[in-house]
Amino acid sequence: MRNLSVNGDRLWRSLMETAAIGGTPKGGIKRLTLTEEDRAVRDWLARECRTLNCAMIVDEVGNMFFTRPGTDPALKPIAIGSHLDTQPTGGKFDGILGVLAGLEILRTLNESRYTTRHPLMLVNWTNEEGARFSPAMLGSGVHAGVFDRRYADTRIARDGQALGDALEAIGYRGDAAAGSTKMAAMLELHIEQGPVLEAQGKDIGIVEGVQSMRWYDLVIEGVEAHAGPTPMPLRKDALVAAAELVLLVECIANSHAPGVGTVGCLEVHPNSRNVVPGRVELSIDLRHPEDDQLDVMEAELRREIGARLGDRFAIGLTENWRSPAVKFDPRCVEAVAEGAAAAGYSSIRIHSGAGHDSAYIARVAPTAMIFVPCLGGLSHNEAESATKEQCLAGAQTLLNAVLRLDHLE
Amino acid sequence: MRNLSVNGDRLWRSLMETAAIGGTPKGGIKRLTLTEEDRAVRDWLARECRTLNCAMIVDEVGNMFFTRPGTDPALKPIAIGSHLDTQPTGGKFDGILGVLAGLEILRTLNESRYTTRHPLMLVNWTNEEGARFSPAMLGSGVHAGVFDRRYADTRIARDGQALGDALEAIGYRGDAAAGSTKMAAMLELHIEQGPVLEAQGKDIGIVEGVQSMRWYDLVIEGVEAHAGPTPMPLRKDALVAAAELVLLVECIANSHAPGVGTVGCLEVHPNSRNVVPGRVELSIDLRHPEDDQLDVMEAELRREIGARLGDRFAIGLTENWRSPAVKFDPRCVEAVAEGAAAAGYSSIRIHSGAGHDSAYIARVAPTAMIFVPCLGGLSHNEAESATKEQCLAGAQTLLNAVLRLDHLE
Repeated sequence: MRNLSVNGDRLWRSLMETAAIGGTPKGGIKRLTLTEEDRAVRDWLARECRTLNCAMIVDEVGNMFFTRPGTDPALKPIAIGSHLDTQPTGGKFDGILGVLAGLEILRTLNESRYTTRHPLMLVNWTNEEGARFSPAMLGSGVHAGVFDRRYADTRIARDGQALGDALEAIGYRGDAAAGSTKMAAMLELHIEQGPVLEAQGKDIGIVEGVQSMRWYDLVIEGVEAHAGPTPMPLRKDALVAAAELVLLVECIANSHAPGVGTVGCLEVHPNSRNVVPGRVELSIDLRHPEDDQLDVMEAELRREIGARLGDRFAIGLTENWRSPAVKFDPRCVEAVAEGAAAAGYSSIRIHSGAGHDSAYIARVAPTAMIFVPCLGGLSHNEAESATKEQCLAGAQTLLNAVLRLDHLE
Repeated sequence: MRNLSVNGDRLWRSLMETAAIGGTPKGGIKRLTLTEEDRAVRDWLARECRTLNCAMIVDEVGNMFFTRPGTDPALKPIAIGSHLDTQPTGGKFDGILGVLAGLEILRTLNESRYTTRHPLMLVNWTNEEGARFSPAMLGSGVHAGVFDRRYADTRIARDGQALGDALEAIGYRGDAAAGSTKMAAMLELHIEQGPVLEAQGKDIGIVEGVQSMRWYDLVIEGVEAHAGPTPMPLRKDALVAAAELVLLVECIANSHAPGVGTVGCLEVHPNSRNVVPGRVELSIDLRHPEDDQLDVMEAELRREIGARLGDRFAIGLTENWRSPAVKFDPRCVEAVAEGAAAAGYSSIRIHSGAGHDSAYIARVAPTAMIFVPCLGGLSHNEAESATKEQCLAGAQTLLNAVLRLDHLE
C-alpha cells in the first residue's frame, strides 16, 4: 500500500468546472434530476472517465457506475461516489464533492500507475435530492431493493414528466438490472450539512451511522373565541397549548443529547389577530442515533402531551414516517478513521442527521461515510461553501480509506 | 313614570322575520353593508317605523334615525339602537337585537300611549361590522367626527364598489349632515359576544366602558438550519423563541386580570417539517379596562422580551394600532343598573372587550351599553344564539333605562 496524494487543485477545478452546468447568478447550482443540466453533467463525467479508461455501466434507473479494474478479478469492487443532482437553489458541494473526489481518486491512481486489488467503482446515484421527483434517494433505494423499478419509473415531477420518461429523454435509461452491480464496500464523502465540525474545529467527521428519525403530525383542538370579550380563565387557546408543546419537544431533545427535536411546521386557525386560536396543526421531528433512545423520547412525548394538555384539549398525534437507525460497517468506519489519522487530519465520530444514499446502500454492502465541514453548516442553499483545503482533506481521507479497505481481505 | 312591559314574543317575531333577509342555510345571516340585503332590511325597518308615525332622517353616510316626539320640544332625543349589517357568516343577534329591541320599545310606547319628555330616537348605524368596507364602526365614527365623510365615501369593498357609490345604489344616501343629529344620550343593547354572563349565570351585563386595546406586530429572527444535523445547543430556533413569547403574553395577561392578551396570528418561515424555523412573525393583542394598567402590561412585555430573548434573537416589536379605554357616562350606566334591578334581573358590571358603535358615540353624547348572554359566548358565527327570554330581558332593561334617563333632567 503506497502513500498516494490526491491533487487538491485539480479536484477544485473539477468542482468549479461542473458548477457552471446549471450554475446560478448567486453562485449555486440548479441541476434538477434528469433535466438537460443533469444530462450535461452526466455526459461530462462519462467523458472524464472514458479518458481514464474506466468502463461505464448505467442501470435501469440511471445510476452510473465507472469501473477501474483491480488485480484480483474474483473480488467485488469497492465503490466510491455520491450524487450530481441538486436542489432548485442548491450549492456546489452537496453530493457533488463525493462524486468528483471519487473521480480525482481514479485520476490519482492512474497517474501513479497504482492498481488496487479490488476493482474500484465510481458511482453517481440518480435522484438523491428528491426535489424534482419524490422520494429522495430513489436511485440508491432501487439499487438496495427498498423501491422497485416500476415505482421509480412512475414518480411524476411537478412539471408532469414521469421519471421513466425523463430517463429515456436524456438518454440515461441503462440496460443493467438495478442492484445487479455488487459491491465489496461503499464509501461516500459528503459535506456535513451541519455545524458540528466547524464548531469543534475538526477536519473530518467519521460517520458511524445515520440517526433514527420519526415524523409526527399533531392537531390541537381548543375553542375559537373573540380575543376581546373572553377572559383568560375561560379560554382554551390552542396556540398556548402548542407553545407548551414546542417547549416540551425542545426539553425532551435537550435531555436526550445527542438526540434532536424540531417543530418545523405550525399552522394556526383561524390565524386572525383578534381571535383566540381554536386549532393548531404542527409537525414534530425527533431523531437519535439509537432506536431505543428514540423510543424513550417518543414515550416521554406521548406521556407529557397527555399529562399537560390532555384534560383541556383534544389532541391528535399520528406518526407520519419513521426511518430506523443505520449503523455503518465497523471495518469501513475504522478504515475512514485510520485514513484520516494517516493524513494527519483531526477528526471526531459523528452520526448523520440527514439521509444519504449510503443509508440505503448500507443494507446491501458494508458502507461508511466521511464528512467535511461546510461554512456555518449551511446546505440546500446557493451560499453553501467549503474550502479547497476542506475538499482536499475529504478526498485524501477517502483515498486512504479505500486503500486500507483494499487490503483488509 | 309608568311601569311598561315590552312584548318578548313580538320582539322575537321581528328577529326571526328579518333574519330571513340574507338568511343562510345554517341559520345565520349574510347581510353585508349596503348590499341588496342591507337595502331590504333597511326598507323593512323604515316601513315598520312609518306605521308607528316615527319620522325618518337619513344622513350622508346612510345612518338612519327614526324619531318619536316627546312632550318637551326643547330636549334633545334619547337614542337607542345599534346596526343591522352582519359578518359574511354572521348570526341573528349581533347588532340586530339592539335595533329591533329599540323598535319594540317604540311599539310598546305607542300601544301604551305613553309619551316621554325627550324625543326618542331609534338608530341604525351604517357599516358597523367592517366586513365589506374597512374600517368597522364607520357610520358611528363619521357621526362622532372620528372619520370625515370623504374618507367614508372612498372606502372600497373587495368587490370594487366604493361606499359612496353603494349608498347611492341602494338609495340610502341621505341629506342630513353627518353628526347633525344631536342626542341627549345613547343606549345600545347588544349580545355580549363573550362567555362571562353565561359562565356567571347573570341576565344582564351593565357595561361600564370599552377596554383599552393595543395591537403589536412582532418579528423574531433566528437561524434557519437543517433539523437533522444541527445539535440543540447550536440552534437559534425562532419558533422556540415564539413559544416562550406566547406563554409570556399569557402570563402577563393572567397576572393583570381582567386584562387579556392574545397571540392570534403566527407564521413560521420556512414552515418546513425538517428545517429549524429561522423566522416567526406574530401578532399580539393586549387589552385592559384601564389605560394605565395596559401601560404596565406593555412595559412588562417589552422588558421580558428583551430579558428572555434579546441576547439570542433579533426581535422587532412594532405597535400596529391602539384604542384608548372608553368610560361610559356614569348616569347612563346607573340608569341601566336601575333598569335591570327594577325588572328583577340579575346583573354584573362588565367592560366590553370588543369595539361597538357606542365606543365612538361616547365621544359626543352620554352613552352606555347593555349586554345579554349569548350561547357559549359565540358570535360572528352562524351558530350565534340567544333565547327569547334573554332578548326580552335586554329589551325590558333598555326600556326601563330609557324611562329613567328621560326623567333625570
